[in-house]
Amino acid sequence: MVDHDPVREVTRADVAALAAGCAVFGTGGGGPVHIERLATEAALDEHGPVRLISVAGLTDDDAAIVLSGVGSPSVGVEMLGAKGQPATVVREVERLIGRPVTAVMPAEIGGSNGVSAVRWAAELGLTVLDADGMGRAFPEATMIAMNVAGLVSEFCVLADMIGNVAVLRTVDLAWLERQARAMIVASGSVTLGAHYVMTSRNAPGAVIEGTVGRALRVGRALLAADDPVAALCTALGAGLLITGKVVDVERTATDGFTRGAMTVDGVGTDRGRRLRVELQNENLVALDEGEVVASVPDLIAVVDTETGTAISTEMLRFGQRVSVLAWPCDPLWRTPRGLELAGPAAFGYHLPYVPLAGTGR
Amino acid sequence: MVDHDPVREVTRADVAALAAGCAVFGTGGGGPVHIERLATEAALDEHGPVRLISVAGLTDDDAAIVLSGVGSPSVGVEMLGAKGQPATVVREVERLIGRPVTAVMPAEIGGSNGVSAVRWAAELGLTVLDADGMGRAFPEATMIAMNVAGLVSEFCVLADMIGNVAVLRTVDLAWLERQARAMIVASGSVTLGAHYVMTSRNAPGAVIEGTVGRALRVGRALLAADDPVAALCTALGAGLLITGKVVDVERTATDGFTRGAMTVDGVGTDRGRRLRVELQNENLVALDEGEVVASVPDLIAVVDTETGTAISTEMLRFGQRVSVLAWPCDPLWRTPRGLELAGPAAFGYHLPYVPLAGTGR
Repeated sequence: MVDHDPVREVTRADVAALAAGCAVFGTGGGGPVHIERLATEAALDEHGPVRLISVAGLTDDDAAIVLSGVGSPSVGVEMLGAKGQPATVVREVERLIGRPVTAVMPAEIGGSNGVSAVRWAAELGLTVLDADGMGRAFPEATMIAMNVAGLVSEFCVLADMIGNVAVLRTVDLAWLERQARAMIVASGSVTLGAHYVMTSRNAPGAVIEGTVGRALRVGRALLAADDPVAALCTALGAGLLITGKVVDVERTATDGFTRGAMTVDGVGTDRGRRLRVELQNENLVALDEGEVVASVPDLIAVVDTETGTAISTEMLRFGQRVSVLAWPCDPLWRTPRGLELAGPAAFGYHLPYVPLAGTGR
Repeated sequence: MVDHDPVREVTRADVAALAAGCAVFGTGGGGPVHIERLATEAALDEHGPVRLISVAGLTDDDAAIVLSGVGSPSVGVEMLGAKGQPATVVREVERLIGRPVTAVMPAEIGGSNGVSAVRWAAELGLTVLDADGMGRAFPEATMIAMNVAGLVSEFCVLADMIGNVAVLRTVDLAWLERQARAMIVASGSVTLGAHYVMTSRNAPGAVIEGTVGRALRVGRALLAADDPVAALCTALGAGLLITGKVVDVERTATDGFTRGAMTVDGVGTDRGRRLRVELQNENLVALDEGEVVASVPDLIAVVDTETGTAISTEMLRFGQRVSVLAWPCDPLWRTPRGLELAGPAAFGYHLPYVPLAGTGR
């Protein structure tokens, strides 16, 4: 259903499609893509296209750092990162591993980080590893494929906008989350983090492969379509849960998370139906008359019915005409360890996980 | 006036005197010494005496790390550091500098850190460099001799009780203070920090020499005396500002600092006089009827009139019979850069600094 021709490079002309695709994989979270789109277009104007390599294409000499912009998306909208941050991180990681960094992998393809990876690679003169750690967006550092696979990272490097850099070696990921958040708040909330170094040896089975190319293809399908929602469903292998109107949005910002729920009343052929989507940064659980029809780790996107543009949980408003899509997650998330880290219970829901049909690829 | 015979080692029997001396040099702050005294006696019971070396005795192969227990003294009273913290810090520093650490220097001699340095050295099997970064206690990381001398430390290492370790490379000391505080709060407030590595090349002129031995000698003089306050004045080269009774204590805890003031009404030959001491963790300014009679960076200690025991700003109480002593700081603090960092204006006082007479050694 999806065009699987390998994408070999990302050009300036691809950035709009990449951003649209990453927004869809953000499943409501992952940070807004529009500023990153502009910054990435500018970076490719300056540095030229960025090469994409597959996990299978990694050589013994390759070392891919897993980067993510971390902090509050609300601050990120108003304050761009500093140009020197990626170079500072790379310099520190190279000092720690004793060899050159050759590639960048986004920690999460969903939202702004999937787009930023291309910008960082362009600024650094590196390639992008066509993979990510989530296949979507998730709110916590523990919810990452490398953790599901049991990989342990010896350090995390954080570089803030001011020029400060920190190396954290924590006893576990929960402590990393806690200490990194403290550092990020102290630094003004726009921090670039590097966690895990992926190589030809540790990457297979421990990352979600092909997701940069996939986001680009999904975005292309979306932007080229006459019927964007139908095109998205086809490109994603997604089911349409409802087409309707947002009639209620409850949302609070607590502990750095956006939590709440939104309700959609069906229109057209869906008239008389009502869908509720529970939120925590991302869209977590979709309930149709109280019955779970989709839940994490499967993906739930709320898109504009007219344009197919993904709507983040922060941008949901009463009266919006939306379509809600759901599609299967990567099989890695359906393993016992994957569900322990990112299943409904990991978000506080006492629900059994009922997998959506499909392969998730 | 002070016995300048070099102290060559610190034994278990010396710890009580060292703790008493460090409390005096704490000038009201630096953290309580009584728990550290017990922990250090236990460490010397286990590991034997610790050797003291002078700055002049450093060889080209020596590398002394500057350690301090950082965080809230209020927490420190109830929670001892973990045994592994010093070793974790040393391992990380050795990785960063690429050679062995051979000695420990306390960041500040005043308060608990001066005592802890002996415990850390015992646990690590290292020597203690007979020097410190303040010659007293000060509340902020910028107020340190190495900073007065213009030394720049490439990193600060923080190890918490849990086993987490962080390396911070900040653009300046103000950012270090801000980020380190955030980390320390996230880690439960009992953190061991290493900042600066002192060698035979960079130490001369950039540390305050002989202060561990001096604290030990002052403590010995205090504990052995029939008239402890008179003995302290002699050992310190201090003047007695007042002997009296605490009649007022104002104190608030804000931003992790204890701020306020205390008032002493004279007794005996001082009857009819009134001294006010302004506090911020340490005793900062002494005013006699509104006239400054001593101020930072000179040292002001409030001691029990009967025993000569130093009373920290947190332990001041209405009705205590106290003597207030003041003596000159190290000449390094009287340089323009020293006064900029730790003179009255650095604490928000619009007062000219009037040096106490004496050399401060």
